[in-house]
Amino acid sequence: MEAWKNYQEENKDRFLNELMDLLRIPSVSADSRFNADTERCAEEVAARLREAGADKVEICKTAGHPIVYGEKIMNATWPTVLVYGHYDVQPADPLELWHTPPFEPTIRDGKIYARGSADDKGQFYMHVKAFETMMRTNTMTCNLKFMIEGEEEVGSSNLGTFLRENKERLKSDLVLVSDTSMLSMENPSIEVGLRGLAYMEVEVTGPNRDLHSGVYGGAVANPITVLAKMIASCHDENNHITVQGFYDKVVNLSAEERAEMAKTPWDDAEYAKDLGVESLWGEKGYSSIERTGIRPTLELNGIWGGYTGEGAKTVLPSKAFAKISMRLVPNQNSDEIAALFTKHFETIAPNTVKVKVTAHHGGEPVVTPTDSKAYKAAHRAIETTFGKAPIPTRGGGSIPIVALFEEVLGLKTVLMGFGLDSDALHSPNEHYHVFNYFKGIETIPYFFKYLAE
Amino acid sequence: MEAWKNYQEENKDRFLNELMDLLRIPSVSADSRFNADTERCAEEVAARLREAGADKVEICKTAGHPIVYGEKIMNATWPTVLVYGHYDVQPADPLELWHTPPFEPTIRDGKIYARGSADDKGQFYMHVKAFETMMRTNTMTCNLKFMIEGEEEVGSSNLGTFLRENKERLKSDLVLVSDTSMLSMENPSIEVGLRGLAYMEVEVTGPNRDLHSGVYGGAVANPITVLAKMIASCHDENNHITVQGFYDKVVNLSAEERAEMAKTPWDDAEYAKDLGVESLWGEKGYSSIERTGIRPTLELNGIWGGYTGEGAKTVLPSKAFAKISMRLVPNQNSDEIAALFTKHFETIAPNTVKVKVTAHHGGEPVVTPTDSKAYKAAHRAIETTFGKAPIPTRGGGSIPIVALFEEVLGLKTVLMGFGLDSDALHSPNEHYHVFNYFKGIETIPYFFKYLAE
Repeated sequence: MEAWKNYQEENKDRFLNELMDLLRIPSVSADSRFNADTERCAEEVAARLREAGADKVEICKTAGHPIVYGEKIMNATWPTVLVYGHYDVQPADPLELWHTPPFEPTIRDGKIYARGSADDKGQFYMHVKAFETMMRTNTMTCNLKFMIEGEEEVGSSNLGTFLRENKERLKSDLVLVSDTSMLSMENPSIEVGLRGLAYMEVEVTGPNRDLHSGVYGGAVANPITVLAKMIASCHDENNHITVQGFYDKVVNLSAEERAEMAKTPWDDAEYAKDLGVESLWGEKGYSSIERTGIRPTLELNGIWGGYTGEGAKTVLPSKAFAKISMRLVPNQNSDEIAALFTKHFETIAPNTVKVKVTAHHGGEPVVTPTDSKAYKAAHRAIETTFGKAPIPTRGGGSIPIVALFEEVLGLKTVLMGFGLDSDALHSPNEHYHVFNYFKGIETIPYFFKYLAE
Repeated sequence: MEAWKNYQEENKDRFLNELMDLLRIPSVSADSRFNADTERCAEEVAARLREAGADKVEICKTAGHPIVYGEKIMNATWPTVLVYGHYDVQPADPLELWHTPPFEPTIRDGKIYARGSADDKGQFYMHVKAFETMMRTNTMTCNLKFMIEGEEEVGSSNLGTFLRENKERLKSDLVLVSDTSMLSMENPSIEVGLRGLAYMEVEVTGPNRDLHSGVYGGAVANPITVLAKMIASCHDENNHITVQGFYDKVVNLSAEERAEMAKTPWDDAEYAKDLGVESLWGEKGYSSIERTGIRPTLELNGIWGGYTGEGAKTVLPSKAFAKISMRLVPNQNSDEIAALFTKHFETIAPNTVKVKVTAHHGGEPVVTPTDSKAYKAAHRAIETTFGKAPIPTRGGGSIPIVALFEEVLGLKTVLMGFGLDSDALHSPNEHYHVFNYFKGIETIPYFFKYLAE
């Protein structure tokens, strides 16, 4: 038995309680009303890194929320691993759909319910506890650098600058990230690709003021109706995206690669049942696993306009808005797609309204190697603790920073995530299985052990 | 000069201040948070009717907001007129677009800015002050009954019951209402038709919870996208409404009637300029004045779903909602249209989502006679005080009660409104011209005088 096993067993309760404390801080990066909490969360992360044994811990200021850095350099001949994570979380609304408050973590049926439990506090904190374990049990085999940021949920917009200004300090052999999912506890997997993102906001202005829908209705274009028509036109009858040039650079997988993908354990009926839908939806000619992994999408994230309160108000509103994001695949480029989208909406807008398109943030799609020493170490570590070899999968989400690491630091990333797709990320009742939390803490030291061999 | 002229001149300031006080009460009937204010407003109206000289003033309970009743029966041989108005107001949001707070009435450039200033406190209160004038100057020529309700903005849903239960008390020769507009101060007009209303709410449910748009996006139908497609399909390329059976009962005007309508002073360019739009919109084959008067419409009053806050949230929402209302013309029926709409949405909904349609409230379209003694009295009164004969027009708005009066009480209505379409009814910065307020108070006694002749 590994030397660290006992240590972890003895400290289990504390490991869990510390995570619960972290989850109590509402570090919602998108909402400036939570700025003080987000700041406090950074301080807390810094303190925990110091306690675990990190040196040179620093809360690094950025133009947005700070980045927490810490390191333990023990031997110049050892591999150096840069662990990345994020302490910021998604907004928790709609609040009324949470069964327990999002920032009062609650354990039910072996799951920790709290905003950020899986994405990503529960996951990056496994690394802090694995690091503590190795420090206290003298089992360190690699040098470690931690970089825990506070803007992942708003596009990591200040991270590029930080990477460029701290190239020397961040010098490593690879990046290790736990911010993704496994297929299931029975089918462990490692994500080897991530989609990119272009997140847009569309504002449609009709009349210069809200109007009485009886007095004016019928003679002036309704911005909600116009926006709906524009949204409706974004997918054709095969659910292909109609934005001009959208697919031009998409890399299509070979028949061989698609056949390999088709072997992934997957059940459409079960998937539909879990989501409570009678029928699935998606781009014609592709399976669900392809639709969420290797194909780009255009999704409505939000829409609003006119009267949305109780009862009835007969208004013909002046404005309507939508938040629309596109998931990108290799070799689509976030800025290019944002420009195509903007042009598309400006082109299809009728002259009865004005349309303003704004880009929120973007990230580039990535594919990570499966033949690297680091990937093999992750594969072997998971096989050791789960008793089953992990399957390589393509993830649908985006971690824009993975492309940035490659571009600025020249580093490849290993995505050793322990979440589940059913963890309700970005949704009410987000949760993380206690089992997965401890499994991660158990697995991570093996990764370092195998990497150093 | 009429005997009442001096009295009105001497009491001008008080007449204005009393209206301002009434406008300070946020009697928003649609929003239960304002229930106490709405109640207080009813009490205030009752007090003012008593002060003006009304007998048997009563705050009549209903299943919703109360109805204020008062009367002055002076001579059994005189005509009896039932004055209808409403003390409730539309919600004031979006609040941030008001230049001065909606419930702190402010006079700027000769206009009283406040929610309810034109719709309908400023208009029904003219009747209270005209009544006071006639009482104090001994110039009453008709018996008067006042019925001022508190649910006009939410569909007058309890008024039908009240009318049925109070037939004897409400017995009159006609109904007089000031809750409509004139073309302009230079072109006084009287509305002789009103559109009906069917107000619906649509709820589209996709997955049973909010999802991460990266993880699930592409494989499950997005309820916002589906709702947008359904809304987009409600109008064809000629802006005809596609709801099956929608036009079946519409009474088309004769070429003669349309030619008469075309004589109404109207300038599309000026209309577009006032609304700040480059181009108008509407049903092919009809003019703007027809589109807002004699043709039915389907308008989006509100839409919401997903994340609508600051910044970006990559959610694929579980639900999306829309408030959609239809304006109806003779002989469409509100319940029938609501049923057709419901069926339409249930039919066009794909099986990737669930659709729930709810009817909020409705009202029937009406056409009022122009050959009655009462209409002629209104015509002559306006001609006297404006120095120009009023034009009969078809209004786009709905006052469901007008149809109810006919159905339950067998009474015809005269719509002697003094508002302007530009008063921003149901919008931020609603206002009522001080000139029109006093003009109304001046005109109303002439109506009674001519009616009694």
